[in-house]
Amino acid sequence: MLAVVDEGASVAGVLTQSAFVGAPVEWCRRQLSEPLSSHAPRGLIVNAGNANTATGEAGRRHVMDICQAVAVLMACRPEQILAASTGVIGEPLAVGKIIAAVPQLVSSLSASHWAQSAAAICTTDTYPKGATASAMIAGKKVIINGFAKGSGMIEPNMATMLAFLFTDAVIPRSVLQLLLVDSNEQSFNAISVDGDASTSDTCLLFATGKAGNSPPTHADDPMLVDFRRALESVMIDLAVQVVRDGEGAQKLITVEVRGAENYHAAKTVAKSIANSPLVKTAIAGGDANWGRIIMAVGKSGVRLTADALAISIGGTPVAAHGRRVDDYDEAILNRHLAGKEIHLAVDLGVADGSARIWTCDLTCDYIRINADYRS
Amino acid sequence: MLAVVDEGASVAGVLTQSAFVGAPVEWCRRQLSEPLSSHAPRGLIVNAGNANTATGEAGRRHVMDICQAVAVLMACRPEQILAASTGVIGEPLAVGKIIAAVPQLVSSLSASHWAQSAAAICTTDTYPKGATASAMIAGKKVIINGFAKGSGMIEPNMATMLAFLFTDAVIPRSVLQLLLVDSNEQSFNAISVDGDASTSDTCLLFATGKAGNSPPTHADDPMLVDFRRALESVMIDLAVQVVRDGEGAQKLITVEVRGAENYHAAKTVAKSIANSPLVKTAIAGGDANWGRIIMAVGKSGVRLTADALAISIGGTPVAAHGRRVDDYDEAILNRHLAGKEIHLAVDLGVADGSARIWTCDLTCDYIRINADYRS
Repeated sequence: MLAVVDEGASVAGVLTQSAFVGAPVEWCRRQLSEPLSSHAPRGLIVNAGNANTATGEAGRRHVMDICQAVAVLMACRPEQILAASTGVIGEPLAVGKIIAAVPQLVSSLSASHWAQSAAAICTTDTYPKGATASAMIAGKKVIINGFAKGSGMIEPNMATMLAFLFTDAVIPRSVLQLLLVDSNEQSFNAISVDGDASTSDTCLLFATGKAGNSPPTHADDPMLVDFRRALESVMIDLAVQVVRDGEGAQKLITVEVRGAENYHAAKTVAKSIANSPLVKTAIAGGDANWGRIIMAVGKSGVRLTADALAISIGGTPVAAHGRRVDDYDEAILNRHLAGKEIHLAVDLGVADGSARIWTCDLTCDYIRINADYRS
Repeated sequence: MLAVVDEGASVAGVLTQSAFVGAPVEWCRRQLSEPLSSHAPRGLIVNAGNANTATGEAGRRHVMDICQAVAVLMACRPEQILAASTGVIGEPLAVGKIIAAVPQLVSSLSASHWAQSAAAICTTDTYPKGATASAMIAGKKVIINGFAKGSGMIEPNMATMLAFLFTDAVIPRSVLQLLLVDSNEQSFNAISVDGDASTSDTCLLFATGKAGNSPPTHADDPMLVDFRRALESVMIDLAVQVVRDGEGAQKLITVEVRGAENYHAAKTVAKSIANSPLVKTAIAGGDANWGRIIMAVGKSGVRLTADALAISIGGTPVAAHGRRVDDYDEAILNRHLAGKEIHLAVDLGVADGSARIWTCDLTCDYIRINADYRS
């Protein structure tokens, strides 16, 4: 997948916080930290099937060689091309095949190829993931388009596996970066398929400036209120698509935690629930086993008052004051759990911190997909 | 299950560090922290099937009532009886059934009923777990017997689900507690089935003093060297049995991490590997997908030098200097992975901290067991 932007664009990015990262992540990290003047973005090249991770010096050289091959045809420097790879870790990259494909990629560029681009980066994804929104900035309409891929090894610690966003707004890089970080925290950093964080997580936001709006001067500029809303909606849309299509997933689970000491504590509890294999298997089995939610809250390490805890499933209170609600109707719960969208809410009753996490159930298909040879 | 000890015994315990604990855990915590003079242990009563957790004031009263029923027949105070419960969280305990069974439990007590006791506390365990060892303390032979149960919700944060150890050694409670904590860190705190920490984890060590050895004065007393070895061997034996019998487990996986900054860092990395669903499913599938081990090391949050990392599987080096070992023989790996005992070793190449964790593979049977109604 090759995407290009005209001169004058800016780019922001968030990358995996894994201590062991792929060569393309290292490459992006370097380009994103350089002064914009010498590293104005011109393109992005992505391959699926091989993560080019744990490939040492050769892997680093391959990223450079691929970006060089694109740069020659784009009449720019390799540092202006960003790169991402997704797939198996530790195998040598077939760099020759990618470089040989570059001329064809350049000659077939089209402003309408969003769906093809989203499909090109898939691995075990069962459908391509795209989203779009528009927003007004100081009286000018701007567009935000994005696509992403996910599936397994998904508990992004900075960005999901791969997500690419494009807007025609005029937004300076420093402002763009802050907007991306804020929306990312509420979207890709709020999902988990299996609690495994990828070595290749990459989320890039390009702003081409073609809309010609008057440029905002800082991230809290009031003119950006609508753009922030639109950006967050596109990113949440993509993030939820990633979870919905989690490996083996049958159900989308929304975990809402409130009443926590603060946002961080709420998110810690929500993630503990979202990553608990026992909670996820109970939901796969349609069992309202809320005792496992209690367990996941307890093991999260967050301070709590056991006798203040309340839990509801699909809006039905099942626990209050730290114990069973005596008269809840199990039939209503079972109907909710038989559906495709499950809602779990926990109130810690301590203060007013809240957070939301999306995850999916854990099924035999997850095992089958991942017990297969070298996926 | 009822166990009793004569007057003059001491007891040490480690309990779950979950912020949400069962009523019997609260009860044990209180008795273990009281002065020994008024709370010398006389017995232990355990039920399986209901964890008596998230049961509020009623649950607390039920523990007291059960211990009272035992105490009456033992001619002691209820505070001298310890209690543990394992099973479903959040359901009211059928306290009447337990109290009604107490007279029969007392009348059938026997010093030879170890196997029956181990069986009585099982839930989804497929076999009872027991271990024994002897040791010399200052010229006297002492015995350590123990039994445990585990299966799911197993990543003990202080002790496993339930483990009970008995020795005839003379060891004061303060010393006994230190010995238990040390051995626990290397045994029950070094296993994980699914990364879910129970609300009921309880490990108790009773010392009856019947062996008549001269009492040690502190935990580092040289006379305890052999006892420490024996205690650790019994506890590791039980802990490994718990993992081997993890829900749905087909393979026992030993994860050894060395070359870390310190013990804590090594254990964090080892747990990250042991709890990664992608590592565990790869091993279930017999796939030497060491890239997933790289991922789990990277996401652990421990600082590392990517180019120093080395990995071996079953003694065969597959990665060195942070990348693939070019000429490893995949057939040898596949033979190792087809077996029942899998060995993963990671060298971070940073310093000399090391740790060992035992876990099991993640199979469809784990899903089936836990997607069943209210297990």
